[in-house]
Amino acid sequence: MALNIGLDLFGGDYAPLCNLEGLKLVLERQPDIKVTVFGDEALVRPLTKEHPYKERIHIVHAPDKIDMGDSPMRSVISKPNSSIIQGLNYLKRGLIDGFASAGNTGAIFGASVIILGAVLENVRPCLMTHVPRPHDPDAIILDIGANADVKPETLADFALLGDAYCRHVLNIEQPRVALVNIGEEPEKGNELTKAAYRLFQQDGRFRFVGNAEPDKLFRDLADVYVCSGFAGNLILKLSEALVEIVKRLGFKHPYLDRFNYENLGGSPVLGVNGAVVIGHGISNASAIANMLLRCREIASSALHKKIKQAFQQA
Amino acid sequence: MALNIGLDLFGGDYAPLCNLEGLKLVLERQPDIKVTVFGDEALVRPLTKEHPYKERIHIVHAPDKIDMGDSPMRSVISKPNSSIIQGLNYLKRGLIDGFASAGNTGAIFGASVIILGAVLENVRPCLMTHVPRPHDPDAIILDIGANADVKPETLADFALLGDAYCRHVLNIEQPRVALVNIGEEPEKGNELTKAAYRLFQQDGRFRFVGNAEPDKLFRDLADVYVCSGFAGNLILKLSEALVEIVKRLGFKHPYLDRFNYENLGGSPVLGVNGAVVIGHGISNASAIANMLLRCREIASSALHKKIKQAFQQA
Repeated sequence: MALNIGLDLFGGDYAPLCNLEGLKLVLERQPDIKVTVFGDEALVRPLTKEHPYKERIHIVHAPDKIDMGDSPMRSVISKPNSSIIQGLNYLKRGLIDGFASAGNTGAIFGASVIILGAVLENVRPCLMTHVPRPHDPDAIILDIGANADVKPETLADFALLGDAYCRHVLNIEQPRVALVNIGEEPEKGNELTKAAYRLFQQDGRFRFVGNAEPDKLFRDLADVYVCSGFAGNLILKLSEALVEIVKRLGFKHPYLDRFNYENLGGSPVLGVNGAVVIGHGISNASAIANMLLRCREIASSALHKKIKQAFQQA
Repeated sequence: MALNIGLDLFGGDYAPLCNLEGLKLVLERQPDIKVTVFGDEALVRPLTKEHPYKERIHIVHAPDKIDMGDSPMRSVISKPNSSIIQGLNYLKRGLIDGFASAGNTGAIFGASVIILGAVLENVRPCLMTHVPRPHDPDAIILDIGANADVKPETLADFALLGDAYCRHVLNIEQPRVALVNIGEEPEKGNELTKAAYRLFQQDGRFRFVGNAEPDKLFRDLADVYVCSGFAGNLILKLSEALVEIVKRLGFKHPYLDRFNYENLGGSPVLGVNGAVVIGHGISNASAIANMLLRCREIASSALHKKIKQAFQQA
């Protein structure tokens, strides 16, 4: 049975136009997907009339927008008819299998935690992304910004979240987990990473392979790189900035394109009861399409259920 | 009068050969410098006999080596005849104007603080480096690893250290100071950067221009970028790693060469009573030469005295 993925029509700087274009791309190329679109009904209606795949689009009228400047927490309460809140409520009720939005990251993340809930009470959900490597398959890194300040125990939970993603979405059997740090040795780093190192060694839930300095991110020495949201966000944005500089200086290479947000397919929210993917604010049609496909991939693996089991068993 | 700069003959993976080569390069090209070499006298002696600039080399026999694996603090006590400890003692006594070493960073930094002392009791010295920018002169970033954990007040002191370096070494009249962060707005970031933002706004000692996300490092929006040693070290090593990957993929560009440790001239120690520069462990002759020149540049500006004045006046 085709999975039904929710799409936020309003999310992103080029919404709704690019969102509609991205939706078309996915429906054209992927016969085995249905999309429930949350947004202004009138905008989507022409698409369902004109195209042969109208059977595969469902529209939920959600005319309110959560803007980039809106406070994440307040908008959950003040904008119940927004595309994001409606979409997450549909996901909560099991009416869709996943939800994808390129809107306000803070609002989507915060609303996901409030509406869907964390898989277990003490687990702090986080955001992850893929790390492109020149000669090896992608690794993943988490958290990339949802939790700026964390405790060592939170980093250990991130490790388990990343382990589950690698097992069930990337089909890696025994994922290797590394701690992002400023030295290789156990005693190197700040108070957080030193304490996390000791904890990771004792934690039997995942396979810890030690500290990783930033150059190790790009070599096949681990599958999951764990760090605070502050460090992860710095790493993500610095990588994007340097890749962009090099491109502008005239270097063209397929490896650089793998850093492109268009191809990365957005950032999955891990640790909530549902498949949610957040796209880049500047998403074009291709990025929207890849975000929908990433969301379907995660939904089809029933990742959130497997994450819940992993935390319950541990 | 020519400045007299101390050189650690043993510091670096390719010591003493590259150190001697680097020394020769500097003496050949810079008539206005004297060098006091700390290390095994027998190794330097041939150089003073063969060459016309023997008048400009002074040798201090310091046969002990502090190795990369040595504990920074212990080696200060246990290896008084090492090249590093001897060099710093000469600097302390005013027998040389600056000291440069490509040895064990932790040992040089730690010994600098112990032997030379901080400019004022409460100031935490730190390490800085230059940030190459594609279309603009270098900026500087600090701390890059000496202080993994810091308080907001420490970051404010780093700002003042960076301000002084820009004024007196780079000749920038009103240096702009930015706080490295994961968002532009004052309320973004972790607890440290949020508190630092408020403090920087109130601190009248330097010109604060706001938060800077990593992409801003490479644009001419500030002269000094302030962060914890943990964040700074991540940024430094990630930049080096990505530049290296891009080079290996075949991209050649003068901008990339500016990230090369050879050309960066090492990392000055700021906030101690003396001009100390620490070179990269893998320094070749050219890197050693540039480290000596950077050290002379800092020594000739009497930076540490001006830093002391800046803290005393504030």
